[in-house]
Amino acid sequence: MQNKGQRGTTTSPAFIWWLRWVRRGGPGERPGGSQEPGPRSPPPAPCYRRPKFLRGGGGGEESPRGRRAVRGTGPERPLPWDSGYAEVINAEKSEFNEDQATCCQISIRRRELGLEEDKEWLILCSTQFLTGYYWALFDGHGGPSAAVIASNYLHYCIKQKLEEVAGAITEARPPMHMSGRCVCDSDPQFVEEKHIRMEDMVVGALENAFQECDEVIGQEMEATGQTGGCTALAALYLQGKLYVANAGDSRAIVVLKDTIVPMSCEFTPETERQRLQHLAFLFPKLLDREFTRFEFPRRLKGDDVGQKVLYRDYFMEGWGYKLVEKADLKYPLVHGHGKQARLLGTLAVSRGLGDHQLKVIDTNIEVKPFLSCIPKVNIFDFALHDIKENDVLIMATDGLWDILCNKEVAHMARSFLAENRTDPHRFSELAKCLVRRARGKKMGHQWMLDDGREASYDDISVFVVPLHNRDEDC
Amino acid sequence: MQNKGQRGTTTSPAFIWWLRWVRRGGPGERPGGSQEPGPRSPPPAPCYRRPKFLRGGGGGEESPRGRRAVRGTGPERPLPWDSGYAEVINAEKSEFNEDQATCCQISIRRRELGLEEDKEWLILCSTQFLTGYYWALFDGHGGPSAAVIASNYLHYCIKQKLEEVAGAITEARPPMHMSGRCVCDSDPQFVEEKHIRMEDMVVGALENAFQECDEVIGQEMEATGQTGGCTALAALYLQGKLYVANAGDSRAIVVLKDTIVPMSCEFTPETERQRLQHLAFLFPKLLDREFTRFEFPRRLKGDDVGQKVLYRDYFMEGWGYKLVEKADLKYPLVHGHGKQARLLGTLAVSRGLGDHQLKVIDTNIEVKPFLSCIPKVNIFDFALHDIKENDVLIMATDGLWDILCNKEVAHMARSFLAENRTDPHRFSELAKCLVRRARGKKMGHQWMLDDGREASYDDISVFVVPLHNRDEDC
Repeated sequence: MQNKGQRGTTTSPAFIWWLRWVRRGGPGERPGGSQEPGPRSPPPAPCYRRPKFLRGGGGGEESPRGRRAVRGTGPERPLPWDSGYAEVINAEKSEFNEDQATCCQISIRRRELGLEEDKEWLILCSTQFLTGYYWALFDGHGGPSAAVIASNYLHYCIKQKLEEVAGAITEARPPMHMSGRCVCDSDPQFVEEKHIRMEDMVVGALENAFQECDEVIGQEMEATGQTGGCTALAALYLQGKLYVANAGDSRAIVVLKDTIVPMSCEFTPETERQRLQHLAFLFPKLLDREFTRFEFPRRLKGDDVGQKVLYRDYFMEGWGYKLVEKADLKYPLVHGHGKQARLLGTLAVSRGLGDHQLKVIDTNIEVKPFLSCIPKVNIFDFALHDIKENDVLIMATDGLWDILCNKEVAHMARSFLAENRTDPHRFSELAKCLVRRARGKKMGHQWMLDDGREASYDDISVFVVPLHNRDEDC
Repeated sequence: MQNKGQRGTTTSPAFIWWLRWVRRGGPGERPGGSQEPGPRSPPPAPCYRRPKFLRGGGGGEESPRGRRAVRGTGPERPLPWDSGYAEVINAEKSEFNEDQATCCQISIRRRELGLEEDKEWLILCSTQFLTGYYWALFDGHGGPSAAVIASNYLHYCIKQKLEEVAGAITEARPPMHMSGRCVCDSDPQFVEEKHIRMEDMVVGALENAFQECDEVIGQEMEATGQTGGCTALAALYLQGKLYVANAGDSRAIVVLKDTIVPMSCEFTPETERQRLQHLAFLFPKLLDREFTRFEFPRRLKGDDVGQKVLYRDYFMEGWGYKLVEKADLKYPLVHGHGKQARLLGTLAVSRGLGDHQLKVIDTNIEVKPFLSCIPKVNIFDFALHDIKENDVLIMATDGLWDILCNKEVAHMARSFLAENRTDPHRFSELAKCLVRRARGKKMGHQWMLDDGREASYDDISVFVVPLHNRDEDC
């Protein structure tokens, strides 16, 4: 349930031990856990970088490391829709806060594909623009750099990709209009009716934007000699629909009066096992003879050779038996369970941005070919729901969800908002309340929950977005 | 809704036209639809091969081509659980009936992996064996050979794979028992708890059995100079659970008193577009410069070059715009919609068995790398349902589902069984009734439904399996 030092590129101790064992050519002394190497020295950066919309707020700028003060939005800088935001830094798991957040309005003008940016600006509606609203969380690993770049840049990529398809979103008969038309009268098969809808264009724009942002991060990091990666969870409201795009292990849920609507799913080495194994099957060189693509119920050891073991290959959802061969003793491509699961013994997520330079420690094996920067996009259509005053979208990094499940978060949101009907800053207060709950209280050197379990030692970031008073579209 | 001459390897006329157009080096006369070439001459085979359990029945062996008589199981040869089966041959779409069916009991003995078959037979229970029940449908294309081999062989593969894991299914502590155990006291990470259940072993056995059957078909077809492929839908009952494994576009549903439980999903070029495009992205040579991996809303033509078109790449669930380049005029890897959708202009399904030699007409492009022989397995757990007297599993090839939707089939099943409570052959009668409905009646040269729509011209095969009186497990 908690994840001290076990996330991101914090290579798993079992894997480091295995690697040394192999490098030495076989069995030998295993170093104690305390001899585990520290993280690589990071590039110079401020220790605690807060999102733009928090800077200059009442909380002051002093380093809050020791006491892990919860920072949140206050009345002096309201966010769109009166959204609330709160965060807390990790318990010295890393030198930095690795979470980053962005929230802004996005103005979308129509831009022609292939034309210079300044050649064609068309006024699309009375307020000149289509207006979107954007909230995003980024959870960095191997340093904060990728998360910082993504938090500064992803919304520009989204804006640009939306402007390229603005015609399809707003016009009745956009170029190659979506109802199809007959291009070859003698063959009706040349007409295709794909039922492409406006929201399919927005989904495509988000998918392309994540890919472009990933490229930018790669270039920027290479140019500045920085390393690392981040997860990305972005919510975009546009024309009556909320689009939630997720790559990584953050999570968004919509909490309605009577139901919870999950708006994302997590992408980890475990949830994407078959994709990762399939790639290793297609390109065995990616494993450089150091890893096995098979999954086993536990690590195998020398005297398992010749025995019968349970295993899964890329095409299997079920399990089978195989006889253990020597090659099966290699470290598994996907290994570990839950928060301990690792891709190539190295990374706890299978999708995200950055990590272009990441190699498996002491090898030439690149992790990036196995990573995907493409988000899965889920759509919440306001027209299909009778939105009540206390209905909210809750977005948070894994620091929150490691401690609290969807039901607990929804329960807290419903009771808090029911008890605080008049407070104008109640969504911000709810965000703080959620962060505080997952962080727990310091007891000696430990962070503990009220029920005696360990609390989260990770960065925790939470948006609470009220759905009732959304601004009308232009 | 119907599919005359548009299924299996019947290459699409639009594609053949395009190919000739390209071969001639550009635009020219397009031959009329009537000049479309006939299918390749098939290997010699009997015109109408009925499943073993139908042979020698009351229906006689005369060729029923013209009138498409519905054949079904009768009282003289009861199937396990009193299952009903019925079939009709296609309306001269092919020279053969391309559907095949198998139904049998499977006796599973424990076999040690890697040991000779006769070295170890253990008695597992009082009746010596674990008993499973098996129903399967195969829908051939490019000739009946693959379907015939699969109908003779898949249950042997399943039996063999189940025998290899029989220990895990029946023993309290099977080899590498599934609750995990600590193999390295100093590192708790060496224990993995994967929560592997008995049913995961059965699913793995089914996945492996389909793969093995596909290899056998490949060898057999190569040895005998035959070609073709088939879909496979197999249901296995074992120890209180019904496993439905599907590769292709057949379908199984469980019809309960108040609900319908879908037990399979279809694998077609459309439903597997992203997998197919991704493979073409990873291995562009598979397309040999003849196809484009992009999807467009319609076929592009010369004067689209330089225009803006909607497109999707492998990573996109949404759509975007791109400027048309000359390479985009190539034939799309996945093209067409619904029953017209084709992989490489050639095949209407994306999973199945066989097709090892299949090439795109007049090219060296192989289709097999894009095909998957792996089924998706769905489980129906009898313990979670209060099974009523009229509850049934209905399995059918696409000939039925092209005409009737799940709801219509469920409605027919419920009313027929409610009105025929005492007929001992009512499940067989229901199967015939479903086949008759989808086949329709001959009006002049056409097969028509009662409501004036065209009926199915395809082979139609249906199993109706009652769930209430299943034999007790051994």
